Amino acid sequence: MMLVYGLFMVVPLALAIVWREASIGALTISVLSCLVTGGVMAFLAPSSGRIGIREGYATVLGGWLFASLFGALPYWLGGVMPTYIDAVFETVSGLTTTGASVIDRLDDVPRSIIFWRSMTHWLGGMGIIVLFIVILPHIGAGAAHLFKAEVPGPTADRVSPRIRDTAIALWIIYTILTVAEIVLLMLAGMSLFDAVNHAFATLATGGFSTKDASIKHYDSLAIELIVVLFMIIAGGNFALYFQGWQKGWHRVYRDTEFKVYLVIIAASTFLIAVNLCLAAGEEAGKALRVALFQVASIITTTGFASADFDAWPPLAKLVLFILMFIGGSAGSTAGGIKVSRIILLVKQGWAELKRSLHPRVVVSICVDQKSVEPTVLNTVCQFFFLYMFTFFAAVLLVAATGLAPFDAMSAVAATLGNVGPGFGVVGPTTTYSSLSPLAKTVLTLCMLLGRLELFTLLVFLRPEFWRAHRNW
Amino acid sequence: MMLVYGLFMVVPLALAIVWREASIGALTISVLSCLVTGGVMAFLAPSSGRIGIREGYATVLGGWLFASLFGALPYWLGGVMPTYIDAVFETVSGLTTTGASVIDRLDDVPRSIIFWRSMTHWLGGMGIIVLFIVILPHIGAGAAHLFKAEVPGPTADRVSPRIRDTAIALWIIYTILTVAEIVLLMLAGMSLFDAVNHAFATLATGGFSTKDASIKHYDSLAIELIVVLFMIIAGGNFALYFQGWQKGWHRVYRDTEFKVYLVIIAASTFLIAVNLCLAAGEEAGKALRVALFQVASIITTTGFASADFDAWPPLAKLVLFILMFIGGSAGSTAGGIKVSRIILLVKQGWAELKRSLHPRVVVSICVDQKSVEPTVLNTVCQFFFLYMFTFFAAVLLVAATGLAPFDAMSAVAATLGNVGPGFGVVGPTTTYSSLSPLAKTVLTLCMLLGRLELFTLLVFLRPEFWRAHRNW
Repeated sequence: MMLVYGLFMVVPLALAIVWREASIGALTISVLSCLVTGGVMAFLAPSSGRIGIREGYATVLGGWLFASLFGALPYWLGGVMPTYIDAVFETVSGLTTTGASVIDRLDDVPRSIIFWRSMTHWLGGMGIIVLFIVILPHIGAGAAHLFKAEVPGPTADRVSPRIRDTAIALWIIYTILTVAEIVLLMLAGMSLFDAVNHAFATLATGGFSTKDASIKHYDSLAIELIVVLFMIIAGGNFALYFQGWQKGWHRVYRDTEFKVYLVIIAASTFLIAVNLCLAAGEEAGKALRVALFQVASIITTTGFASADFDAWPPLAKLVLFILMFIGGSAGSTAGGIKVSRIILLVKQGWAELKRSLHPRVVVSICVDQKSVEPTVLNTVCQFFFLYMFTFFAAVLLVAATGLAPFDAMSAVAATLGNVGPGFGVVGPTTTYSSLSPLAKTVLTLCMLLGRLELFTLLVFLRPEFWRAHRNW
Repeated sequence: MMLVYGLFMVVPLALAIVWREASIGALTISVLSCLVTGGVMAFLAPSSGRIGIREGYATVLGGWLFASLFGALPYWLGGVMPTYIDAVFETVSGLTTTGASVIDRLDDVPRSIIFWRSMTHWLGGMGIIVLFIVILPHIGAGAAHLFKAEVPGPTADRVSPRIRDTAIALWIIYTILTVAEIVLLMLAGMSLFDAVNHAFATLATGGFSTKDASIKHYDSLAIELIVVLFMIIAGGNFALYFQGWQKGWHRVYRDTEFKVYLVIIAASTFLIAVNLCLAAGEEAGKALRVALFQVASIITTTGFASADFDAWPPLAKLVLFILMFIGGSAGSTAGGIKVSRIILLVKQGWAELKRSLHPRVVVSICVDQKSVEPTVLNTVCQFFFLYMFTFFAAVLLVAATGLAPFDAMSAVAATLGNVGPGFGVVGPTTTYSSLSPLAKTVLTLCMLLGRLELFTLLVFLRPEFWRAHRNW
């Protein structure tokens, strides 16, 4: 894995050599560190060994930690960041497709480093889908069910051939969409370099831009609409697209999660546009345009900005704040709690009201004409609680560094949901650079927790994980 | 019920007559309205009829609505409030023991009306316990289990004798504690009138004071400590005290919920005191004193203030904000999600991490050496989700009236949790009077939702409730 990662890093190195930038040295050392470490690890690692649940978690977390620590080298060695903590923050923000940045002036950064930054998005975005498929069958029925993949069994050996097929197909879809967006953005007037970077950031629902003002810099309706379209696609379920591709696109339109996802986008856009017109005196067309862009950007947890939404009226801000929690669809590159979980939670809450009228009735929850197992429902509930618990714990830690309450809440919501910009001191016109090292460390952890959907990180707290004997 | 309510209203009327206040007329009309309506209803009502689940809900909600609408008459007719919405807000705030006020200057209000205001607290505080016992066995195993009452069966006819005994015992404990606090407060230097009002507000965990500056007005350590002690008692489980009284006090000390409740108070006090010392330069003794008072006041959802906690640093404010969600113990007069539910949620979340390592293991959750049924756990999870869902929905509505995000969140958290004061424009030094009628209506509904623990109000949304046939 480290070897592959090192090879990807060769791309920005090649660019740096072509453009004769000062970052050549930093990138060369980074590439060599990756390759050497990867080589040593491959040499030392046992060639066989069954991968159980515990090994699965350890592999995922180990992979993410190495990718974060080594991916930070170009920034740090290249002198772009004052401290290594900042460099790790930026790398984790890239890999988890959060898009929260600590770089105040992008013009001062070598273009090869900017390209590496966008590439971490693209790798992280796809990486998580692959991880999803490869790892989830071990985790249990819950997440696999959400993913709606056709992966039937709980053990790796039975499903591995099909998983690989799916992973390759998703990779192809992802690449085709990226290329399509690059072409469209160039037709709309972007340079090749900007188009590639923004396409990487859009498809991965990341949000790193090549401009300090993000998409607002271009002030072009065409570019905004292209980015909105691809953000919404990237926030949908890639496995669903794969099914649509194979078995007809009507499957996509009939999918409950996809429909609810689009309805939430439409309703939020309407609400914010009305609020902007009435409370901020914005003109209707302009209000609709910025509202749609920002809603799509936040619910897909991309984090691009086409306006300074920190200056919007309270209702609009709170709608965006809530969208940070909801996030995209299961099986997308987006973060957050995910629309499918919200659907299950709402359906369960509604059913619970029925149960309080008819205590002895057994209520079953159906999604897409299929009944959902109680263990899945239970896991979804626990996930929601753990998400809110993590949120409040992190908010306390961040507030301890002196951030105002709503600023701290938005910073945690934006990193835990892998969105990027929040409100106030971490708003769309500023960066996370002003935060203290403690706050940056906590938020870095939030990004990882959000991306790995809590459980993968939190299981390391269980004493069972560290016990030598295995009885499963 | 209306008749009893009307009779209670005679007490402030008597006071008004004794003190020769201008509120005599208003109170007389209010008393007569209650008695006449109650008499007509008693005359019209069928003398028999089985009370099923649906009838139970309808009775509770109907009772609360009547009590709120008629209880508002003294304020409205007495000219204390500009609008009837304000009067209903104040009454619901009293009955739900929230303690959020729209009266800016208490000195302008007749003392008989102030006494009625404190009395709504006292009636609501006890009323809810009685309702709890009378109604809960119908609702299902969930809440009854939480309440740990010795009520075994699901039907009313089997348990009614024991329920009544318990209700009477709780009433006695409640009254004894109220009298004890009145005596102690008078010993600490309060006038009889102030002592009675504050004791009513403390035991009900309400928070209405007779002074605009709340407890801060007295600036007396003795009074603060007495109020803290009784707030903490009132935030504990009254059924537990009854058990302790009958079967030995060691039961109280060994109770998990009571222990966790005390630990949360101690930890929060410590955290806020340290934060006040370090970030606000407060002296250690003073910091500990205001922190303990405010933590006890907020977690028990009383809402008295001994300091302007809106001016505290972010961490301290957020700790209080989170305490608004936690609330007191099950079976107390306090609001919020309740400590016992938080315990079950944390235990479940922790167990879920174990399940993600050992998917086939069946994990059982135990509290006080007793295993908790899965349906109870499930209901607790749903309750948490519905609580957060209601919270965010109400925040959007309140923010639509123009409140800043954190102000809106604190206003909803403070009313949904029946706390009282929040932060910003609804902070401890101000009142809710500046809010728009829409915001006041939404917050009034929040107080009722919080007090009736969501389900009782939300079941009215189910179509099944309105159907004529009964198949249970």
